[in-house]
Amino acid sequence: MSASDSAVASRRFMLGVLAAMPAMPVLLRASAAQAQTDPLASWNDGSAKQAILDFVKTTTDRASPQFVPPEDRIATFDQDGTLWVEHPLYTQAFFALDRVHELASRHPEWESHEPFKAVLANDLPALAHFSERDWAELVFVTHAGMSEGEFREIAEHWIATAKHPRFKRPFTELIYQPMTEVLDYLRANQFETFIVTGGGQDFVRSYSQRVYGIPAQQVVGSSLDTKYEFHDGKAELIRLPKLFFNDNFDGKPIGIDAFIGKRPAAAFGNSTGDQQMLEYAKSGPGARLSMIVLHDDDKREYAYGPARGLPDTKVGTFNEALYDEAKRDGWFVISIKDDWKHVFAFEA
Amino acid sequence: MSASDSAVASRRFMLGVLAAMPAMPVLLRASAAQAQTDPLASWNDGSAKQAILDFVKTTTDRASPQFVPPEDRIATFDQDGTLWVEHPLYTQAFFALDRVHELASRHPEWESHEPFKAVLANDLPALAHFSERDWAELVFVTHAGMSEGEFREIAEHWIATAKHPRFKRPFTELIYQPMTEVLDYLRANQFETFIVTGGGQDFVRSYSQRVYGIPAQQVVGSSLDTKYEFHDGKAELIRLPKLFFNDNFDGKPIGIDAFIGKRPAAAFGNSTGDQQMLEYAKSGPGARLSMIVLHDDDKREYAYGPARGLPDTKVGTFNEALYDEAKRDGWFVISIKDDWKHVFAFEA
Repeated sequence: MSASDSAVASRRFMLGVLAAMPAMPVLLRASAAQAQTDPLASWNDGSAKQAILDFVKTTTDRASPQFVPPEDRIATFDQDGTLWVEHPLYTQAFFALDRVHELASRHPEWESHEPFKAVLANDLPALAHFSERDWAELVFVTHAGMSEGEFREIAEHWIATAKHPRFKRPFTELIYQPMTEVLDYLRANQFETFIVTGGGQDFVRSYSQRVYGIPAQQVVGSSLDTKYEFHDGKAELIRLPKLFFNDNFDGKPIGIDAFIGKRPAAAFGNSTGDQQMLEYAKSGPGARLSMIVLHDDDKREYAYGPARGLPDTKVGTFNEALYDEAKRDGWFVISIKDDWKHVFAFEA
Repeated sequence: MSASDSAVASRRFMLGVLAAMPAMPVLLRASAAQAQTDPLASWNDGSAKQAILDFVKTTTDRASPQFVPPEDRIATFDQDGTLWVEHPLYTQAFFALDRVHELASRHPEWESHEPFKAVLANDLPALAHFSERDWAELVFVTHAGMSEGEFREIAEHWIATAKHPRFKRPFTELIYQPMTEVLDYLRANQFETFIVTGGGQDFVRSYSQRVYGIPAQQVVGSSLDTKYEFHDGKAELIRLPKLFFNDNFDGKPIGIDAFIGKRPAAAFGNSTGDQQMLEYAKSGPGARLSMIVLHDDDKREYAYGPARGLPDTKVGTFNEALYDEAKRDGWFVISIKDDWKHVFAFEA
């Protein structure tokens, strides 16, 4: 791994993602009505859409040799860049930066101490070159030192109020409508849909039920150590500034095995951080579906990669090697430009 | 913690549990028919049975101020001594000892090396004094060094064939019928039932669906590190002789928070290893149920504790301090002698 890969890796693990979307239930209801005729109404016809339909058919038909019993129907989804927008920064990075500003009055020493100094000065070029250690320091001061309940409240409040700099909407409105349809379609066919994110597990859990219909117990992510405390008849878990689990790269199959204990029949990702999860899902016995989202639409979303000549932005790296592995091993590439009729619910 | 507590603790974490029961589906069907009139037919009337009925009523009635939405209905169960017999040794200890015998021909050095020498000589008094390090060594050589899939096959084969020394039945027939009814009753009321065991997570997962109706993804336990390998298009996780997570004592609420992300509304245990889980469940807001099984029936099962003058066998320690905490904090004590009409399905 190069130094820059490693910086990307650490940013990706450190910075999970998530948000809140009050307008969404109405839009989802509209798409549920369409779903009677086409469960994947926001997808253009093509090999990607067909692969999803074929996979569900063959795994749920009792007459199929590839039938999978309901309790083993496990599908895993990366979040950042797979279920929602990850540009120009992971949503959880915006959260961490906002938290630094909020906590700054209690930490006068930050004004002369990096990486806090650059954050407080909104020095974006400096931020783009933060090291793994810088991001770890930012995450530890903003994500630890409180109880799990307190952290959840802080995250819930932030996601309900913060907005994306380009789209000027809550981050939770920037989930991909076609992927919402895949989640709904799989669940309607008795699949359990898990988020398996390099981002912070508890950050994602604070909105996953509301935004994706995925309960906390189906979110696997990177996490901090906690400490158990019991005083005056009250039990709490206190978050510590120490990494418990890094759910990225080979950490994804390792985390899936530890938390779920079954090899997923279907997996969805968009970057090198998802490579091992996609390999793990694809190489089991029976029907298998590994899919990878290619961000090639800078009009409706973003274009980066750097597969197929797209720019290398260091966020959500989908490179030529990954593209070649996808082709060789029978993963399906989802082109946002070609495969998605709508990207966001608010477009529809 | 005293040295002997620590030895018990380590045995408990090291040695999970589990087994296979082909005769059970028929028996379960019989009890399901009874359940139309009484979902807890193997329970005698009393405060323990009533507490379970009241808890389910108040958390599932939409008109109740203590109503809990289905996705938050989480109930956690210790396994050894709570769902099945843990005497004279944890079932997983029998598994480890059998594995040592099986592997001995490949390890001639074991004949002169403790703790293997004592195991191979069936030296039970020596075994009773094994240290934490001894048990760790036994677990690492018998549970690591193979893929997850290979380990699961080994565990499945053992549990399908091994028998309990006193009852002369498969270990999986030694699950407590009254607790099976509690699992069924909670699930019928849309609770997710999790096993949270100090024992080995993957050992328990190898039979949890068949024996308890609990899928692998709802088993949290102690576990080993794994390593991801990808060769010739095949991905595997290899089990390493190194502890990943110790799911016992404060590890139980820590594991619940990490794996499930929600505070259980109900928790069931039987020993000091469950104390923190029971505190954690009981001290949340709304309706709460913490229950602890007292083994006071040496005719039908075993009597040990050493609460209320029962012998201290060092397995499944339920001591006076725990009894006092139960009374003080409103946990319910389940007396096997008084509260259970039948202990095992084969008695009914």
